Amino acid sequence: MTDIKVAESVADFLAKQGICHVFGIIGSANAHLFDAVYQHPDLELVCLHHEQACVMAAHGYYMQSGRMAAVLVTAGAGIANALTGVVGSWADSVPVLILSGQEATKQFKSNNLARMIGIQGVYVESIYKTCTKSVVTCQDPEQVLRELAKALNLAKTDRQGPCIVDIPIDLQAARLDGEVAESALVAPLSSIHPRLSGLASEDLQQLGDALQRSQAPLLWLGNGLRRLASEDLRTLVKDLGLPYLTSWTATDLFSPIEGLYAGHAGTYGGRAGNVLLQSCDLLITLGTRLAIPQKGYVDDELARRAEIFVVDCDQVELDKLGPRFTKKFLADAPSALTQIHEAVQAIGGLAIEPWLKHLRNVREEMPLVEACHRNDTWVDSYAFMADLGNAAGSDATFVTDMGTALISGFQVLEPSNGQHLFTSQGLGEMGYGLPGAIGAWFADPKRQVICLNCDGGLMMNLQDLHSVIIHSIPMKIVIFNNDGYLMIKHTQNAIVAGRRAGTDVASGLSCPDYEPLVKAFGFSYLSLRKEDDSKTVIREFLEADKPIVLEVYMAPDQLLVPKLSVSITAEGKLVSPPLEDLSPLMPLEVLEKSLLVPLHPNSIPLDRVVAEAKGDAIY
Amino acid sequence: MTDIKVAESVADFLAKQGICHVFGIIGSANAHLFDAVYQHPDLELVCLHHEQACVMAAHGYYMQSGRMAAVLVTAGAGIANALTGVVGSWADSVPVLILSGQEATKQFKSNNLARMIGIQGVYVESIYKTCTKSVVTCQDPEQVLRELAKALNLAKTDRQGPCIVDIPIDLQAARLDGEVAESALVAPLSSIHPRLSGLASEDLQQLGDALQRSQAPLLWLGNGLRRLASEDLRTLVKDLGLPYLTSWTATDLFSPIEGLYAGHAGTYGGRAGNVLLQSCDLLITLGTRLAIPQKGYVDDELARRAEIFVVDCDQVELDKLGPRFTKKFLADAPSALTQIHEAVQAIGGLAIEPWLKHLRNVREEMPLVEACHRNDTWVDSYAFMADLGNAAGSDATFVTDMGTALISGFQVLEPSNGQHLFTSQGLGEMGYGLPGAIGAWFADPKRQVICLNCDGGLMMNLQDLHSVIIHSIPMKIVIFNNDGYLMIKHTQNAIVAGRRAGTDVASGLSCPDYEPLVKAFGFSYLSLRKEDDSKTVIREFLEADKPIVLEVYMAPDQLLVPKLSVSITAEGKLVSPPLEDLSPLMPLEVLEKSLLVPLHPNSIPLDRVVAEAKGDAIY
Repeated sequence: MTDIKVAESVADFLAKQGICHVFGIIGSANAHLFDAVYQHPDLELVCLHHEQACVMAAHGYYMQSGRMAAVLVTAGAGIANALTGVVGSWADSVPVLILSGQEATKQFKSNNLARMIGIQGVYVESIYKTCTKSVVTCQDPEQVLRELAKALNLAKTDRQGPCIVDIPIDLQAARLDGEVAESALVAPLSSIHPRLSGLASEDLQQLGDALQRSQAPLLWLGNGLRRLASEDLRTLVKDLGLPYLTSWTATDLFSPIEGLYAGHAGTYGGRAGNVLLQSCDLLITLGTRLAIPQKGYVDDELARRAEIFVVDCDQVELDKLGPRFTKKFLADAPSALTQIHEAVQAIGGLAIEPWLKHLRNVREEMPLVEACHRNDTWVDSYAFMADLGNAAGSDATFVTDMGTALISGFQVLEPSNGQHLFTSQGLGEMGYGLPGAIGAWFADPKRQVICLNCDGGLMMNLQDLHSVIIHSIPMKIVIFNNDGYLMIKHTQNAIVAGRRAGTDVASGLSCPDYEPLVKAFGFSYLSLRKEDDSKTVIREFLEADKPIVLEVYMAPDQLLVPKLSVSITAEGKLVSPPLEDLSPLMPLEVLEKSLLVPLHPNSIPLDRVVAEAKGDAIY
Repeated sequence: MTDIKVAESVADFLAKQGICHVFGIIGSANAHLFDAVYQHPDLELVCLHHEQACVMAAHGYYMQSGRMAAVLVTAGAGIANALTGVVGSWADSVPVLILSGQEATKQFKSNNLARMIGIQGVYVESIYKTCTKSVVTCQDPEQVLRELAKALNLAKTDRQGPCIVDIPIDLQAARLDGEVAESALVAPLSSIHPRLSGLASEDLQQLGDALQRSQAPLLWLGNGLRRLASEDLRTLVKDLGLPYLTSWTATDLFSPIEGLYAGHAGTYGGRAGNVLLQSCDLLITLGTRLAIPQKGYVDDELARRAEIFVVDCDQVELDKLGPRFTKKFLADAPSALTQIHEAVQAIGGLAIEPWLKHLRNVREEMPLVEACHRNDTWVDSYAFMADLGNAAGSDATFVTDMGTALISGFQVLEPSNGQHLFTSQGLGEMGYGLPGAIGAWFADPKRQVICLNCDGGLMMNLQDLHSVIIHSIPMKIVIFNNDGYLMIKHTQNAIVAGRRAGTDVASGLSCPDYEPLVKAFGFSYLSLRKEDDSKTVIREFLEADKPIVLEVYMAPDQLLVPKLSVSITAEGKLVSPPLEDLSPLMPLEVLEKSLLVPLHPNSIPLDRVVAEAKGDAIY
């Protein structure tokens, strides 16, 4: 067998492992890899204009398709620029393989940790070790291939996540015997995803017993189930017949099952979802890490009459959860769900009709768009989102940025019939929306990609508007114009008496006039103001076959509600309500009727007339 | 004394310590600090649109003025986005104080390292420990003030650099007894910058003896001398009467002294500077870390007949240097220079007239702009740079991005009469130019800021073109249009047989049409093509009183030369020439005549007719 250049072997391997797209930016330290990837007939190299955008694109690519993309950055600023995208993928357990160029191995020969490695190199392992599944700077040619195979594997095993293989330039150019190269690449691939199995039989037994005892069981499904095919998962849950919540990251796993779907819960949950969560007597979470915005701040008050069983593949996240959580099982969530299904079938199903009826009633009484989402002067982002979701087809993928786009998007859109909805949920970095949507399009150009942004957040990766144009991506971009950073204005209302600082144009934060700007990039442009007919504008927007921006003029101080907020009693005392009592507060009798547990003592004295949603006063 | 909110105490302290500007972006985790800084009458808060731009602005602010700025970012993506700017400041020893918001301290109470801290927090200490002088996540209110005082101090002591104080949101809001706050802030400030002193007397003695022995001594002055006032430094060097090179980072420390200034040296050095470096018999480096592009790749061949004395304030960087470096002294460079001056005065000066005459001859024979900088079809960036430098006034500050802007800028511009010239020299990250120039303007709005960019690099912080407009900064921005990443094209010429991949539009890297784009932001626009009269266009550009862009159309494959390149013998053998033999190769007799040492054996067989500059083949 003839010898092969390491860089070419790397490219070959990526292609053979089913990777089709590599997002990257060239530099002198990754030029051999760039060349090899670009020349490879089965790899498409997509050049964006910031390394963080490359990693975010790979995140969106996976969320769209369940397939991994690779990222190729250079040494120094290249890999440093990637950090935010990597942390976002880490937080969301999204597998991404990042290859970084590095200075030559001779620069590592001394034990001296000089300021820079060689000319521009940075200490990649040190920077990335707490936010990746693995990060290795290679020191010999064979190691490159071994680490590559390990990283690809590890990124997809159990809890998924980003892996970095840092490859000095001399190793990229090195030549290896072809057989040696092949064996280095093949050997570590024998392991199977996932390595974790389902529930141990005694754990399953406990869970089965709890289900038999339960009159109001509830599943909470998370992103850890994404490995299952959407239709299979839906069939499994439907056949199981248990009500379920989804985490925001799992919201588009499958189309909602009428009669079982309880919605979302959390500090920005749906009213129905939160009331049902708090009413259940058995909560089984599957493949979700129960982040704070999801489970609320006070564990003792979470689903307060329920036993809670947690099934997750990450021991570290299980260890995070305190005594409120009855049982914590380290297991593969898809396997566990299948086991639960079998166990319930074995006992002939569960008799929970009253609980299912209650669910239907609550869902009916608490619509997602409500009175507080009306505005006489401005477009309301919730009402708009509902219209957009209804008008979009089953091939629509909504990718949101943060702030209004995130909150009103995830509170209102319940993607059905194959619609997708995702963002960088865990880190929540402004700027994700655009590159995330670019990645989504490359993963499946036949779907309609709708990117939801705000005027503030879009700025963070503004440069890649050009990439949309140059790749002729028929992307639809919504910009919610709310004069700055709306969510932080609410934080300021809550914690600094409403004083503004760097959140709107009057306090020093200016966003550009987007109409001329996006036109200069080459986008068509529409705007939507209160006086326009929303449905007509949305139709025109959705029917455009070229890149188009729709700027939506909303109130600069619109509330993002319902949300859990510090509220006030008739005597003027500040009180933290329980998770089911979101602001704006509903009438006490409605709350009481919808709960299958006694009212929380903090709910009772609240002044429900003057109460209105406040900002983030929870700290 | 009444109590005071920690955030307000922080703002007070910054102002009292002479900090005037804070570059930042708000988030929910830094909102108390943002409020306090914004409200403070003596602090100006400047909101940019990416955290990396904020840190780069603080870098440019210092390089312009010698004064520190602070940076205020939020938790999670906020501090993650700052990384590249921080590494750049670390590489260049630029003091920057970074305050980051963080999740509340209760999130740190368990020993469990969960995926995220609280909702969005990242492990700041872990990420930043290898690229800052200090990084601390505070855990109690008094600690915030103590760490702040320490960080401010440390950032400016000896080798300067970035320091991070990471402040949980609850601590920002905490209240402290006023006296406690004051004492926490004052106590650590007793230390004096620098802590290092000058040379020990026996070291000075050795150096003095070497100077007395020397017939061709040469100083190499670095950025470590920046603490001295420009005029004081110039007077000291002039009076000392020794020839000197400057590092690129030190290029604008003071106006060149005719008859003593030897120029720059390095792999992209000036011909004269390199020849003089290689000819000296005593080299004394002061306050420079001797990075690879500066000292070349082969230490044994550096100044090959000279003793080399290195004076620097960073032991780690001294340890990096091998046995070629005769003596390495850990000392404060400004103090050492003063001592050397005194020692030379004490012996009545040095008799080095033949060496000074040689310097004048070499400088005269080797102009910075030469025959290879002519082009019949395109504007040459070197010729343009020389015209621009001559036309600009003494109040001009040139801030460069990377690539063409960096190389031809630093090779041609020799800032005099108070002109400034800087970039992010050590890390060399694309995207620095624009925010660096914004920072420079805030540091001294009376100076004329000229920002030199290329079409590729400008994209990395494109969003902050808007900040130039919104702050009415009369910035002059040059964009060298070279269809992509010119330096990397040369790398590709050198290492992958010239194959292009992601370096120009034909190989997948597209940059936008800047004319409509910058006009949409609000800039005036000029272009310069070969057929235009360069001087007229440059005059119009410099005389504009509003933000203006000048796009310069240069050859997409223009050489960036002279540079040290692998060259070829008449027999076709590849050879690495010594540092003084830059490509395009000069005639052997010219090289021989200008050197005071024998020709290097690698220079002799090179084919000087066919030889031309190649790319980065040095790896």
